[in-house]
Amino acid sequence: MLQQLQAHLKTIETNSEINVVILKANGPVFSSGHDLNELLTNDSEANASLMDSCSSVMQTLVHLNKPVIAQVEGIATAAGCQLVASCDLAYASNTARFATPGVNLGLFCSTPGVALGRCVHRKHAMSMLLTGDMISAREAEKIGLINAVIDSEVNGNATLDDEVLKIASKIAAKSPKAVEMGKALFYKQLEKPLDAAYEIASKAMVENMTKIEAKEGIDAFLTKRTPNWSNND
Amino acid sequence: MLQQLQAHLKTIETNSEINVVILKANGPVFSSGHDLNELLTNDSEANASLMDSCSSVMQTLVHLNKPVIAQVEGIATAAGCQLVASCDLAYASNTARFATPGVNLGLFCSTPGVALGRCVHRKHAMSMLLTGDMISAREAEKIGLINAVIDSEVNGNATLDDEVLKIASKIAAKSPKAVEMGKALFYKQLEKPLDAAYEIASKAMVENMTKIEAKEGIDAFLTKRTPNWSNND
Amino acid sequence: MLQQLQAHLKTIETNSEINVVILKANGPVFSSGHDLNELLTNDSEANASLMDSCSSVMQTLVHLNKPVIAQVEGIATAAGCQLVASCDLAYASNTARFATPGVNLGLFCSTPGVALGRCVHRKHAMSMLLTGDMISAREAEKIGLINAVIDSEVNGNATLDDEVLKIASKIAAKSPKAVEMGKALFYKQLEKPLDAAYEIASKAMVENMTKIEAKEGIDAFLTKRTPNWSNND
Repeated sequence: MLQQLQAHLKTIETNSEINVVILKANGPVFSSGHDLNELLTNDSEANASLMDSCSSVMQTLVHLNKPVIAQVEGIATAAGCQLVASCDLAYASNTARFATPGVNLGLFCSTPGVALGRCVHRKHAMSMLLTGDMISAREAEKIGLINAVIDSEVNGNATLDDEVLKIASKIAAKSPKAVEMGKALFYKQLEKPLDAAYEIASKAMVENMTKIEAKEGIDAFLTKRTPNWSNND
Repeated sequence: MLQQLQAHLKTIETNSEINVVILKANGPVFSSGHDLNELLTNDSEANASLMDSCSSVMQTLVHLNKPVIAQVEGIATAAGCQLVASCDLAYASNTARFATPGVNLGLFCSTPGVALGRCVHRKHAMSMLLTGDMISAREAEKIGLINAVIDSEVNGNATLDDEVLKIASKIAAKSPKAVEMGKALFYKQLEKPLDAAYEIASKAMVENMTKIEAKEGIDAFLTKRTPNWSNND
Repeated sequence: MLQQLQAHLKTIETNSEINVVILKANGPVFSSGHDLNELLTNDSEANASLMDSCSSVMQTLVHLNKPVIAQVEGIATAAGCQLVASCDLAYASNTARFATPGVNLGLFCSTPGVALGRCVHRKHAMSMLLTGDMISAREAEKIGLINAVIDSEVNGNATLDDEVLKIASKIAAKSPKAVEMGKALFYKQLEKPLDAAYEIASKAMVENMTKIEAKEGIDAFLTKRTPNWSNND
């Protein structure tokens, strides 16, 4: 599954017809993480290789040249919760639930904690990691693990599918090159001190402005027309 | 405008009669960022110089020896939103709105993302950066971009002006030297690992305690009188 | 007091019968920080030594091999607020209040800011540090300084004691070794860039899986029985 996901993301990376990725489950559970039987029967070498695959997929999501939106229904636990934390954006139905329950099995969710700890305040991360308790979609929204709960009863007849597609379509209509550069720069600068962050961000802005898509976008805005990215990318 | 703001901040820096800065607009818009015509017609060198000026102003706010409070009415977008994120504190009226809409023009708000990404959780920053959507003052408060919405209908007849002035006056009544040292240390230690952060913060505390203003402040507190900073700074 | 707390934590570290620590006050005030008279009469060397002791206790909490829960009633100010921020988890009664009021005495809460600034968004930290104002337990929950307010009037007859003990008991029932490794890894990886964080976290996971407690935990889960950590640690 991890290898297929990785291979699929690599294909997406080079497909210029894809502008945004929605990561969702084909079933009632978003993802409950690793197969425990596999972890138990693997030797250390096999588990090391499995952890490498898993951490690679998570980092591929962060470094992918297109935004990734997690669309969560059902439960997202352990590496499944890590998937949500690793996406650029995340939306969930009001029945979705989240946990990092490894601690219940004597196997602390250390790698999920890498993504979770960069996504929410540390006391919220530690509460999930130490208790292993499920939190509701509403709580996940409150702590910053997801952007919003899409509650079909509150939001009229809108389904999670509709709403996430609407957000994805909005982002897909932007210049793909500007989005690619912007996403990459965002995560890179976050790991730097303020002055170094401004240095690389300023360079990125200047480079962005020399590109035809910024000229097209600004000209379209100033002349009140819709920008045409496709002819310019 | 950036050069004037920079020069003004430098003047403020050395004016011992100013203890706190309130940054607000002289008009219905807080700031909508750069002039798009200028960006479009500039060559790369001119844009690089413009980005340098802009990043310098933002870092001057962070490093200024006096606290800076953003008082936001109307819209704060792109570098205007970055200004808000770069101030130490921010308050807004309930009609204020915030966005990093560069992506709509093919020009990702990379430099605003430096300030925004250090101010709010990353999924909230990414949502603003990728969609370019306006968020309300209430939403900005919820994610940590501003400290509070001052809603004159909720808070009786209090206006944003009154409330921000009250907060500024409260801070202006503290020892300017202690505030200067404390602000500088806060941002510096945040960029260090925990042990190094404690090392420089402990040194700062000890140095702070040798100063006459800490002796005055503690003595005033213990003898139940109002401290007199002005005679001691 | 700091020396006793430090010595006590060191004893706890090697006591295998203790799995979780609850830090609470023996009186109506959680902690109001340093003795101002002591700070005022100490020479610089004595104050440097005092700051070292204090920063050591705070870092001992972070590095302790068992989770630490702050249980807060009454006020937690200055180094007392820092204690709360330094614990892994924190719960408070609805009458608890929090502040970093050093600035009122000309003595900026620089060391408390180290813990506070890693616990909440920076505008919230700066508001507390610059104004010195008390915030309510509800506000502390909202900004992430504490995990939750335990309101006996809202939560039936449950007291703060009962609720914190319930959370502590839940965590104490996990494998102590997994918790120890997980806690240490969490804070360590947070200070690293993403790739380095994943590298050490993946190694920790693999090592965790070779331990008898993970085998016991996973086997217990798969065979639907209660894990028996005590025989395996």
